[in-house]
Amino acid sequence: MRVKLNKNSAKPLYIQLFDAISEEIRAGRLHNGSKLPPRREMAAALGVSANTVDSAYKMLLDTGYVISIPRRGYIVSFKPTSYESTTPWELDAPEEIVFSPNGIDFSYIDRSAYAKIVRSLAYNDGAGIFSYVSKSGEDELRSAVSKYLYSFRGIKCSPDMIIMGAGAEYLLIALMMIFPREIPIIMENPYDPHFYHTLKDYGRKVILLPASSDRFRADALLGIERGVLFIDPYSRFPRGKGLGAAEREAVTEWLSGGEERYVVENGERAEISPYSDEPLVCLDKNEKIIYLGSFAKSLCPSIKTSYMVLPEKISERWKKHHIYYYALTSKLEQFALAEFIEKGYFTKHYKMMKRIYKDKLDYLSGHLLREFGSDAEICGVCGTYMTVRFKNKDTEEIKKLARRNGVRLMSLNSFCADETEVPASENKIVFGIGDLRRDEIRRGVVLLKRALE
Amino acid sequence: MRVKLNKNSAKPLYIQLFDAISEEIRAGRLHNGSKLPPRREMAAALGVSANTVDSAYKMLLDTGYVISIPRRGYIVSFKPTSYESTTPWELDAPEEIVFSPNGIDFSYIDRSAYAKIVRSLAYNDGAGIFSYVSKSGEDELRSAVSKYLYSFRGIKCSPDMIIMGAGAEYLLIALMMIFPREIPIIMENPYDPHFYHTLKDYGRKVILLPASSDRFRADALLGIERGVLFIDPYSRFPRGKGLGAAEREAVTEWLSGGEERYVVENGERAEISPYSDEPLVCLDKNEKIIYLGSFAKSLCPSIKTSYMVLPEKISERWKKHHIYYYALTSKLEQFALAEFIEKGYFTKHYKMMKRIYKDKLDYLSGHLLREFGSDAEICGVCGTYMTVRFKNKDTEEIKKLARRNGVRLMSLNSFCADETEVPASENKIVFGIGDLRRDEIRRGVVLLKRALE
Repeated sequence: MRVKLNKNSAKPLYIQLFDAISEEIRAGRLHNGSKLPPRREMAAALGVSANTVDSAYKMLLDTGYVISIPRRGYIVSFKPTSYESTTPWELDAPEEIVFSPNGIDFSYIDRSAYAKIVRSLAYNDGAGIFSYVSKSGEDELRSAVSKYLYSFRGIKCSPDMIIMGAGAEYLLIALMMIFPREIPIIMENPYDPHFYHTLKDYGRKVILLPASSDRFRADALLGIERGVLFIDPYSRFPRGKGLGAAEREAVTEWLSGGEERYVVENGERAEISPYSDEPLVCLDKNEKIIYLGSFAKSLCPSIKTSYMVLPEKISERWKKHHIYYYALTSKLEQFALAEFIEKGYFTKHYKMMKRIYKDKLDYLSGHLLREFGSDAEICGVCGTYMTVRFKNKDTEEIKKLARRNGVRLMSLNSFCADETEVPASENKIVFGIGDLRRDEIRRGVVLLKRALE
Repeated sequence: MRVKLNKNSAKPLYIQLFDAISEEIRAGRLHNGSKLPPRREMAAALGVSANTVDSAYKMLLDTGYVISIPRRGYIVSFKPTSYESTTPWELDAPEEIVFSPNGIDFSYIDRSAYAKIVRSLAYNDGAGIFSYVSKSGEDELRSAVSKYLYSFRGIKCSPDMIIMGAGAEYLLIALMMIFPREIPIIMENPYDPHFYHTLKDYGRKVILLPASSDRFRADALLGIERGVLFIDPYSRFPRGKGLGAAEREAVTEWLSGGEERYVVENGERAEISPYSDEPLVCLDKNEKIIYLGSFAKSLCPSIKTSYMVLPEKISERWKKHHIYYYALTSKLEQFALAEFIEKGYFTKHYKMMKRIYKDKLDYLSGHLLREFGSDAEICGVCGTYMTVRFKNKDTEEIKKLARRNGVRLMSLNSFCADETEVPASENKIVFGIGDLRRDEIRRGVVLLKRALE
């Protein structure tokens, strides 16, 4: 194993070691089933303490790269896919590097487990996947999601508070229909334009808080008499910065300041962030917060099954309005997800991906530092993306130059609705690394450096 | 083989023979892989012509009960499921018999073929089922549906005219959003209340043609300046009677009488009817008819993937409005359906089910005749249901008495929107047999007879 540690780096030794070993595993040089060297041996070879090796091994275990077998030690448990190439990257390769914050890495999904599950569901008479559906979603999946939400997000909810639906946007539209048409939805700006446009397409009134960068515009929110605030409290996409304590308080203050004020908490980004605050919904005393979750980010974008947790009061309103609601999501997919969760594959994947995204972001920030030094200031980090301010450079100019050199970048303005803009001084580049390999990240940064010279 | 033919019956001998043999096959008494007696032998044993046997064997072949192997003859190719029970039915069994016109028999789906397909898709790296989705649906499925529509429904359309979506109601709502809010949707009354309520839930204006039984209210339609007529031209559910020639003409006349007049043709019921007229969309010269199809009736209710065929003018409008449209339907399901169609499993199933539903309806009408004679008049038949008028009996009274005796029946009024009613003299019972076994149909009719005595 080729491992080089740098004792002068700011990065802790055990993380360097974790990075090096996981890289060997992903590249297939440490293959599936092989044994990691005993900790003392490894420590002696590298000139570090056994504790450092312990910590690195523990992380490899947590992230699913290895399993621990009593009296045998740590065994690599990872099948590399063609996705993580070992070929040296070509600086002048023609493909564009796209730093998309919506990119998702689905190469690590345990396909063979998923395939076994769907096959047995489709074949097994008793499973009833060809039969009639449950309108609000299959009980098996609602129960699995309820357990998952409690264990991993701290959200207490019974399965019957969960409504499944074909996609987060479908659920959001269906939810808004239980409120009279004059009640608007309120969103931060910039945000995900997909939600904004879908809501507009369906004829809903949308109020945008004034376009801003880091600051949450509580002042503007407090002036709104009634509405449904749709917010991503963990990353405030695309800012990469969650709501601070004071900002959370402002939201709560607004909520309790009048009737017909609600919050929809979008938890999709939190699920791929290694650290995230307690969900807002856990602080909800007045049954006014709805939690929205999906598998599109935490598992893969092609799985459209999403869910909402409705507090009782809203649930009653929902039931009265949506007598004819259908989840409209594949029963096979629902059953497969339920089993994938119940058998522990989902949480294994979920834990591993958080670590992998974190690794990739660390790798990006390392390369930005190497190429740009203090000229590149990291302003926000969350899940699969970070926001970066380049000193003395205009963001739109950076995007243009980068594009000419084969790098596609987005800025906060790329996510502003209807030609609004954040103040030029606050505009930042949004680097997403979800679906990029390490070599692509490195190449993208080097190309960007060239472009800006 | 126990086959008894009745030469005095109005039912042709070859259909009696087909019924008898298919019943033996379904019951498992003629098991998978066994050989049918040679035609001349069979003809001699039954005292019928060889042509009669030929016709019956041909039907068994068409409906997939047998396959033809050169130099060996007809071999049974059918795995009975637990669904078709051979146990004698108990007249006083406690389960209610529900004659639902929405019942679908999914016990004949080739599960092993479907299971093989989904397994290989989930396991096979190249298929990309975990990857990003195509917004309007996967090309593979759009191409398969386009071929199917041409071969089996005579509808010419290129794959890019097809928009996939998670459920017919989702597509209908998304379609309506491209029209200004003041443009209403027009529906016959009674119709499927699910569509009516979903459209209302999403804030669309719905105009109901006056509640009526057999007659299509062209007079009322012609008075409407603009709107989108949503119609099932084949069965005018729940009437079991399609549009006649004059009625089709009235629809065409209305369509060409002004701008902003459109038709959405719901083809779901036509796909399970053994005989159905040419789709309206084939007569469309002005690009004003949209065809809506699904697999919910023709395959099984848990498959939510549906589709619309948009003529070019409407497609342009759609693209302009729905920049952020997503099909929201499982990619695995889309790929699986595409393969299920391309490999011929779907059309085999589709042909077989039409015949099976026809058999069940014949069985129902036979038992109605036996129990009620001319007191039960069959008024309409289509796909999985028929409408029946009972002489000198009030429909609501029939439903009540039947319910007390363990039989659940619906009438035309059960499908009327918002407390409207058809004239009492025209109200009929709607018998659906889709998900009932033969013994259940028989038991239901006998129990009904008892109830009305």
